Amino acid sequence: MQASPPHPPALRAGLLGFGVVGSGTHSVLTGNRDTIRARAGCPIELTMVATRTASRARASVQADVAVLDDPMALARHPEVDVVIEAMGGTTHARACVLEAIAHGKHVVTANKALLAEHGEEIFESARARGVSVGFEAAVAVSIPIVKALREGLVANEIEWIAGIVNGTSNYVLTQMSAAGRSFADALAEAQALGYAEADPTLDVGGGDAAHKLALLAAIAFGGPPRLDAVHVEGIDGLQATDFLHARRLGHAIKLLAVAQRAEGALQLRVHPALVPRDSLLARVDGRMNGIMVKGNASGVTMYWGAGAGSRETASAVVADLVDLARARRQGAQVAVPALGFHDAALQPPRVGVFAGLCLRHYLRVALDQPEGGAQVLETLARLGVPVTQGAQGRHTLALITGEVAESRITAALDALRALDGVQVKARLRVEDLAGAADGG
Amino acid sequence: MQASPPHPPALRAGLLGFGVVGSGTHSVLTGNRDTIRARAGCPIELTMVATRTASRARASVQADVAVLDDPMALARHPEVDVVIEAMGGTTHARACVLEAIAHGKHVVTANKALLAEHGEEIFESARARGVSVGFEAAVAVSIPIVKALREGLVANEIEWIAGIVNGTSNYVLTQMSAAGRSFADALAEAQALGYAEADPTLDVGGGDAAHKLALLAAIAFGGPPRLDAVHVEGIDGLQATDFLHARRLGHAIKLLAVAQRAEGALQLRVHPALVPRDSLLARVDGRMNGIMVKGNASGVTMYWGAGAGSRETASAVVADLVDLARARRQGAQVAVPALGFHDAALQPPRVGVFAGLCLRHYLRVALDQPEGGAQVLETLARLGVPVTQGAQGRHTLALITGEVAESRITAALDALRALDGVQVKARLRVEDLAGAADGG
Repeated sequence: MQASPPHPPALRAGLLGFGVVGSGTHSVLTGNRDTIRARAGCPIELTMVATRTASRARASVQADVAVLDDPMALARHPEVDVVIEAMGGTTHARACVLEAIAHGKHVVTANKALLAEHGEEIFESARARGVSVGFEAAVAVSIPIVKALREGLVANEIEWIAGIVNGTSNYVLTQMSAAGRSFADALAEAQALGYAEADPTLDVGGGDAAHKLALLAAIAFGGPPRLDAVHVEGIDGLQATDFLHARRLGHAIKLLAVAQRAEGALQLRVHPALVPRDSLLARVDGRMNGIMVKGNASGVTMYWGAGAGSRETASAVVADLVDLARARRQGAQVAVPALGFHDAALQPPRVGVFAGLCLRHYLRVALDQPEGGAQVLETLARLGVPVTQGAQGRHTLALITGEVAESRITAALDALRALDGVQVKARLRVEDLAGAADGG
Repeated sequence: MQASPPHPPALRAGLLGFGVVGSGTHSVLTGNRDTIRARAGCPIELTMVATRTASRARASVQADVAVLDDPMALARHPEVDVVIEAMGGTTHARACVLEAIAHGKHVVTANKALLAEHGEEIFESARARGVSVGFEAAVAVSIPIVKALREGLVANEIEWIAGIVNGTSNYVLTQMSAAGRSFADALAEAQALGYAEADPTLDVGGGDAAHKLALLAAIAFGGPPRLDAVHVEGIDGLQATDFLHARRLGHAIKLLAVAQRAEGALQLRVHPALVPRDSLLARVDGRMNGIMVKGNASGVTMYWGAGAGSRETASAVVADLVDLARARRQGAQVAVPALGFHDAALQPPRVGVFAGLCLRHYLRVALDQPEGGAQVLETLARLGVPVTQGAQGRHTLALITGEVAESRITAALDALRALDGVQVKARLRVEDLAGAADGG
């Protein structure tokens, strides 16, 4: 190691936005200043904030921090080494981030929508300009999952990722499961507690999880984020009764984001799924996030923590800043490529055909007469859909199939719907998380 | 980013030892060669192996890999950039590692005993020579916990770490809990399955967990590993009946490694403890490892995965190699300081006095007469030990106290032992994992 100067220059950060993420970042940088400096090898100083609510920021930050109202001016300001984008949205944020990159500034952002939608353009601009784009905070905030995939598990061929990455919908599902609440009631409660937004579509519809999945897959498999390739289903169609049936069949219901490599093609999907009750993912409750990763050397590892929060997000934002400070102290610009692969090696894998997906399925069927159950089982058998578990009441049959292709289960559902006295009430995929055993 | 040469030179690794870790490292480097190269930005080549079982290594490695029988020759060989120490032990391994460092080579090791015992000397030598010492594989193998603490959670003041970091003892405890086996039976089964060694002392006595805890604390709090400061109790005194009582009181029993900062002092301890049954740590079963970390910004995050295994360990060894390759590609020697803090900032915290530790405790008392229960409770109350939970049978009283200082519980146990018709059968600490709620 070279001898370091006694007073290494500070890394100067400019902050775009002073809402939840911005104020949290300021709070952590200020409160943990000495420890961060000791670890980074230099001070990390917030020199400038740009926000529409300048008076709020002015009241919070030290007198020597400039408060601007023009984010573009901050993005190109010569006294800023790294721009922290904490404004949210994708239009203005994109313009500011590209402007910062064009002026040779590193970027750190928690904005998954921005990177999932415009990641290819942003990462490519950063590569061309030789600056880095840090986004640890964009997925599962304080859980260092980006670093785990890009560095910690770097020796592995990643086989699959399965994550609970949206805290709002996980809170709703936990309430539906634990308290037997309807989706509407559980969502209303989450909104009353401030855990869900007035328009919850992005969370409960699966869109937010899809953004995060696109980013995780980009790092794990190499290539730009492919939001367009993510199959997305939300949790708004779930009914409380299915949580009971699932539990009796040994499963919990979670909104999963899954990236899986099978036969050379990549599957990306977000949908509610049954997971084994004894798996750790089934135990990720409330607003927490949890992500399992299967590597071909590591086996399955799992990461758990908060999925949101002001200081929790800041924990990840500041980690990206320290990475930059440490690299710069060594004379390097970019320590690790943003997506974990070097330029020439960014060859995105082929995206798989969804109809070819082969999984187990949970079905719940309402029966006018108990005899209808036999009819359902015969129909499934005739169409090549094996049944591995089932429980029938007088007017309900709940079952889990063996592995069948998506196209086959779709055909089977059509055939069931054509039966007299039988109504298909629910169909959910089952994710077995192969390899996630407890090693006993 | 600077334009990189079309054929960047390989990082040349020399491997000391070709047992479980060494052969796994060879297997992963060979099998995942293309992906590793794409991520590292250069090839990582095993150029040399030194082992006492040369014929076995010779049969496994490519013809262009030199196989030596002298590890010291490898440690100073000019065609080696980084030495992977996979020999085990602490005497010869220490000499080889110091020799490699003296010759300007980076070191990567999975050897927790070596670093826990000789870490101060080894890290100091590496700092002086400007080379790095990677040890991701030394704690919880494929779980990137070293990277999580040193980089991912770098923005945080760490409040506590609580981990299950010894897979052998966790397997034994899981068997005692699930199958009601005695310690001796569960251990014999583990030995028969190859999960425990013929001399299991280091695992079930807590020594191995103490090695790992000393390393985790060094990164989390700054300072050389302080193995001497770890209070160690093993699991060999546990009885199957206490698992049943603990379960009724809402807890599981695990061998925990805990590092905790309280009132400016650091507590380091390894001992069996009751943990809440609904905490994720209680769900870490079989040979798996799990580690919880509480940071003052991140809140609690948790990491789970294999605690041992050939390729699992190699996953972490190779991650350290890729860190080196990426840093070198940027012209840097050492990307991140080995212990996460820069030299001048390595000020080890004061180690706390164990008697001042304040925890809840589980007690099981045998009673000659049922009336003895009241006597026990009166004695505890008189000595200022509150009881928060309890269950009494005719001849057994199991209870959990409120938080009391270690010195006070010791005095109370002495008083109970002096009572007629009362025998103290078990005393275990309770770890509440404050802040590890589910966020609901």
